[in-house]
Amino acid sequence: PKVVVLAGDGIGPEVTAAAVEVLREVAPDVTLEEHLIGGVAVDAHGSPFPDVTRDAVLGADAVLLGTVGGPKWDGNPRPLRPETGLLALRKAMGCFANLRPVRVLPGLEKLSPLKEEVARGVDILIVRELLGGIYFDGDRRIEGDTAYNTMRYTRSEVERVSRVAFWAAEQRRGRVTSVDKANVLEVSELWRGTVQDLRDREYRSVKLNHEYVDSVAMLIVKDPARYDVIVTENLFGDILSDLAAVIPGSLGVMPSASLGDGPGLFEPIHGSAPDIAGQGVANPAAAILSVAMLLRHGLKRPDTANRVESAVAQAMRGNATRDLGGTATTTQFTRAVLEGLG
Amino acid sequence: PKVVVLAGDGIGPEVTAAAVEVLREVAPDVTLEEHLIGGVAVDAHGSPFPDVTRDAVLGADAVLLGTVGGPKWDGNPRPLRPETGLLALRKAMGCFANLRPVRVLPGLEKLSPLKEEVARGVDILIVRELLGGIYFDGDRRIEGDTAYNTMRYTRSEVERVSRVAFWAAEQRRGRVTSVDKANVLEVSELWRGTVQDLRDREYRSVKLNHEYVDSVAMLIVKDPARYDVIVTENLFGDILSDLAAVIPGSLGVMPSASLGDGPGLFEPIHGSAPDIAGQGVANPAAAILSVAMLLRHGLKRPDTANRVESAVAQAMRGNATRDLGGTATTTQFTRAVLEGLG
Ligand SMILES: CC(C)[C@H](C(=O)O)[C@@H](O)C(=O)O
Ligand SMILES: CC(C)[C@H](C(=O)O)[C@@H](O)C(=O)O
Repeated sequence: PKVVVLAGDGIGPEVTAAAVEVLREVAPDVTLEEHLIGGVAVDAHGSPFPDVTRDAVLGADAVLLGTVGGPKWDGNPRPLRPETGLLALRKAMGCFANLRPVRVLPGLEKLSPLKEEVARGVDILIVRELLGGIYFDGDRRIEGDTAYNTMRYTRSEVERVSRVAFWAAEQRRGRVTSVDKANVLEVSELWRGTVQDLRDREYRSVKLNHEYVDSVAMLIVKDPARYDVIVTENLFGDILSDLAAVIPGSLGVMPSASLGDGPGLFEPIHGSAPDIAGQGVANPAAAILSVAMLLRHGLKRPDTANRVESAVAQAMRGNATRDLGGTATTTQFTRAVLEGLG
Repeated sequence: PKVVVLAGDGIGPEVTAAAVEVLREVAPDVTLEEHLIGGVAVDAHGSPFPDVTRDAVLGADAVLLGTVGGPKWDGNPRPLRPETGLLALRKAMGCFANLRPVRVLPGLEKLSPLKEEVARGVDILIVRELLGGIYFDGDRRIEGDTAYNTMRYTRSEVERVSRVAFWAAEQRRGRVTSVDKANVLEVSELWRGTVQDLRDREYRSVKLNHEYVDSVAMLIVKDPARYDVIVTENLFGDILSDLAAVIPGSLGVMPSASLGDGPGLFEPIHGSAPDIAGQGVANPAAAILSVAMLLRHGLKRPDTANRVESAVAQAMRGNATRDLGGTATTTQFTRAVLEGLG
């Protein structure tokens, strides 16, 4: 199988190099191919998502992504921003469901900004719709002194991402919370009705409830253990998944998978952290755990995925990187993971 | 001066009655006039915002609102929902700036879901644009299998709410964080540019920075003490202000003021809590603190406002209501406030 590696900007290259080392170790038969995305692609090719990168990812079995963006490109016009490349990548790959697991590991409650008793036992999977809504609708413009964006969803866009949520719930605790703003938005009305219809038609063993986005923003902090799977639209998912990601105490440990009809896209959820880039202190755990998700969902090797996840959990005990209040370097942490693979 | 009281649904009547008792005590010259809004207005007049209520609020010097909504009306068509009445009230009164102070009082850090050292010293003012964006734009519909809502802002809508934020920052610690999603949305691009231009033109003593909404959702939990004034558009403000509201530990203590060109609207931010309505156990602190905001911003009586706020802070020490883990009833808490007024 072929995995395309897009290291990107900032700390992307460092954490991706660590992740690739682990991938090589546990799956030596995988062919790796590196390409550019984001700011470095703008610099080299004048585009944040060059054609050569597009062709490569469409021919891959899975894509491992680092991080994109940085102050160097922040002032660029929209087509030359790193983020535009990321959105184009998601779109080209057809990855409509972004999965973000949020787990507080037993014994690590002290790292959370939440009180230990609030953080204890949290195990949420956020499923964010990734190709629709206000992110992609073409009806968007600044006209004189007025700006417009359109939030739009079709029933089939809602259905396909909801299926992923219901399927995931069946492997977990069997509960889905669908998040919307149906007391105000027509789009949410369609969303709510579609999710409910699908549940009633095809997933009757799953317990489904509906909550408003503002209320979830509260409850996810006040009582996060109440959630199992959360499914929501693109913009709400952007906000809620980052919010939830803060619960375990470091973004440095949070992977994600974006799935669709073709190859999946696997990436840490943290940003490019330009302030620490190049210093060798970035936490590679999220990138390595993204490799685990790639093994599980992209290459269908769940046993290998489990091996990587155990090794990371073990390495985290004695090797805290700077974001977790320790002094372990990227290399030291990675070595601990490699040793833990046994 | 005339204050119109709209008690609304659920626990609205109980907490509003307590607030009115305090208002009568500290401002005996105020004329009070009660009217219906929300579900009870639908039941009595077939509209969640009847004409008689509209006429009354437009003739008032300030409006004290309870809470609206409840399961009884959740299945109603949009024009007959309590929330529709609330949105129409805001619109009719021209209240474009919603102010939500979030303060963790010294000694009350233990009530927060955040670790005590994270919650300590938090003192944020969220200024939410309340009449624009995706809430009000008329281009909204469900057409067959597709639903649409439009997020729209004009430069002048952004300016008028930003002025409130800059003005508030000048009385506080002099810092404003403007929140947007300018890496994705054209509306945010207009928002960001307009806020920055206004700062550079008229509020040069205020420190302004810009952050993305997903990043703020994280940082407000991880390090809330970094914020002074936050200004943002309607939908982001809905989510972030509810999120921030959870920090002090109980929504039961959080007031809000909605200001515009006419009379202001003052209301607790908690919902109608149908599960405890009618039991006499609701915490009236938020409603009473809304009276303090009404005295300060609506009637320009800052000294009286301070008196009420001190009395509430004092009452909270020995009289925890159920939401704060205590057993004080609505009446007991209110009596403690009245006594504390001296
Ligand atoms: C960089 C940005 C466009 C992106 C998004 O909003 O989707 C990021 O915040 C994310 O969540 O992956
Ligand atoms: C009830 C609802 C329409 C309202 C809003 O979203 O504005 C509420 O959540 C609020 O924040 O006051």
